[in-house]
Amino acid sequence: MNRLALGVAYRGTGYRGWQRQPDGQTVQDRVEEALSRFADVPIGVTCAGRTDTGVHALNQVVHFDSPVERETISWVRGVNRYLPPDVAIQWCKPVDAAFHARYSALGRRYLYVLLESPVRPALESGLVGWVFRPLDLEAMQAAAQCLIGEQDFSAFRSSQCQAASPVKQLRSLSIGRRGEYWRFEFDATAFLHHMVRNILGCLIAVGTGARSEHWLAEVLASRRRELAAPTFAPDGLYFRGPYYPRSLEIPERVPAVDWLP
Amino acid sequence: MNRLALGVAYRGTGYRGWQRQPDGQTVQDRVEEALSRFADVPIGVTCAGRTDTGVHALNQVVHFDSPVERETISWVRGVNRYLPPDVAIQWCKPVDAAFHARYSALGRRYLYVLLESPVRPALESGLVGWVFRPLDLEAMQAAAQCLIGEQDFSAFRSSQCQAASPVKQLRSLSIGRRGEYWRFEFDATAFLHHMVRNILGCLIAVGTGARSEHWLAEVLASRRRELAAPTFAPDGLYFRGPYYPRSLEIPERVPAVDWLP
Repeated sequence: MNRLALGVAYRGTGYRGWQRQPDGQTVQDRVEEALSRFADVPIGVTCAGRTDTGVHALNQVVHFDSPVERETISWVRGVNRYLPPDVAIQWCKPVDAAFHARYSALGRRYLYVLLESPVRPALESGLVGWVFRPLDLEAMQAAAQCLIGEQDFSAFRSSQCQAASPVKQLRSLSIGRRGEYWRFEFDATAFLHHMVRNILGCLIAVGTGARSEHWLAEVLASRRRELAAPTFAPDGLYFRGPYYPRSLEIPERVPAVDWLP
Repeated sequence: MNRLALGVAYRGTGYRGWQRQPDGQTVQDRVEEALSRFADVPIGVTCAGRTDTGVHALNQVVHFDSPVERETISWVRGVNRYLPPDVAIQWCKPVDAAFHARYSALGRRYLYVLLESPVRPALESGLVGWVFRPLDLEAMQAAAQCLIGEQDFSAFRSSQCQAASPVKQLRSLSIGRRGEYWRFEFDATAFLHHMVRNILGCLIAVGTGARSEHWLAEVLASRRRELAAPTFAPDGLYFRGPYYPRSLEIPERVPAVDWLP
């Protein structure tokens, strides 16, 4: 048995998230079906980070132990033939038996793309979040500072979160824009369920002036979910992917990074 | 009756193009239905340029004579409530009774976004064309020169084209890239049916080295469609929109321009 790692890109719009479900409408169901058809034996995979309904991935990383011998490039091209148009393997790499897509990861990156426009999106519907009020960059940047570092993120955690601890290390949160498109980049050891979308709702409340710059620190310190803003839409949320010790040489960059604003 | 102009953005993936059809699965059907529901009387519109099945628009311009009085902003927000998520009015502007979305236009712009990658797209499926062979920028730029100016584009015209003349003026064709994404921008008085996709197929044949730089000039001069490359996929094709005499102040820029590579 050889352990293989795969990078998977998908548009989450039509799926009930990553994780396998009895109804079968998930990305994991599609990926495992395609791998199993290609290898002609059942194959299950383990992912680096589950994504919710409607959330996209640029470089979801999974691993599995292959019961068959195939060329590395065949795992990409062959499996993609059995996948729907909105899911595709981007790369395949043989890894050590000790590699684990989830536990070997040093951290994960998420990106949120947000359209600021008086009018709702059409072309990019499902692919960007939307606010119709102008946002204040400085206010959001100032507010975001309190989140950096090791924090108890209980205030931004959904009631369904299964993480053992609400304490995570947020390494960076950068905010920028290109035209009417805002880009929020999160880098953390790991993320709680709905953490990015809950933080984003709060940052937008600050950005529109509905809340002060200092309010976010109060919400964080309270550890109370009910004080934070509602969970923001999944539409503009992209799992950029996990990163690993550099020596493992797991690809972190896939083309779609350049396609987003 | 007041004449109004509207800018419409849409993702063409789920539609049989712009123009109204008996089966009703077109963007024009959706727009006229929404306008009619909003105004509570039947409204038909005239567009600047028809788009094919699967082709997107950033700023399709239409005009109609309104039988009712509404605030300009209401035509945007009110009508968008009746449109599906992948179609949205972007702006509304009262125009002179002499304004005609099609005949008043001085020209039209199209954009083609093409992914160059060994692996097919997933996240952006339906929204970009795809080539797996590397493209040569200089070869494509050199080949494209012969197309600039007033030309008989019969070689790039579909057999279903209804234009009165195959002679059009191509004002510019610029080719650039950002990461793995190529961007081809066309500006012409008007376009024949399939003209952009047929030219694109030929440019790709030159870019991959399948054809020489000089071949495109031979195809153009032949005026024979069967010498050109097959019609390329609609997926990456965006109607950027028409442009009019500046004095009319018709908006040319909509946010989604910044969302594409």
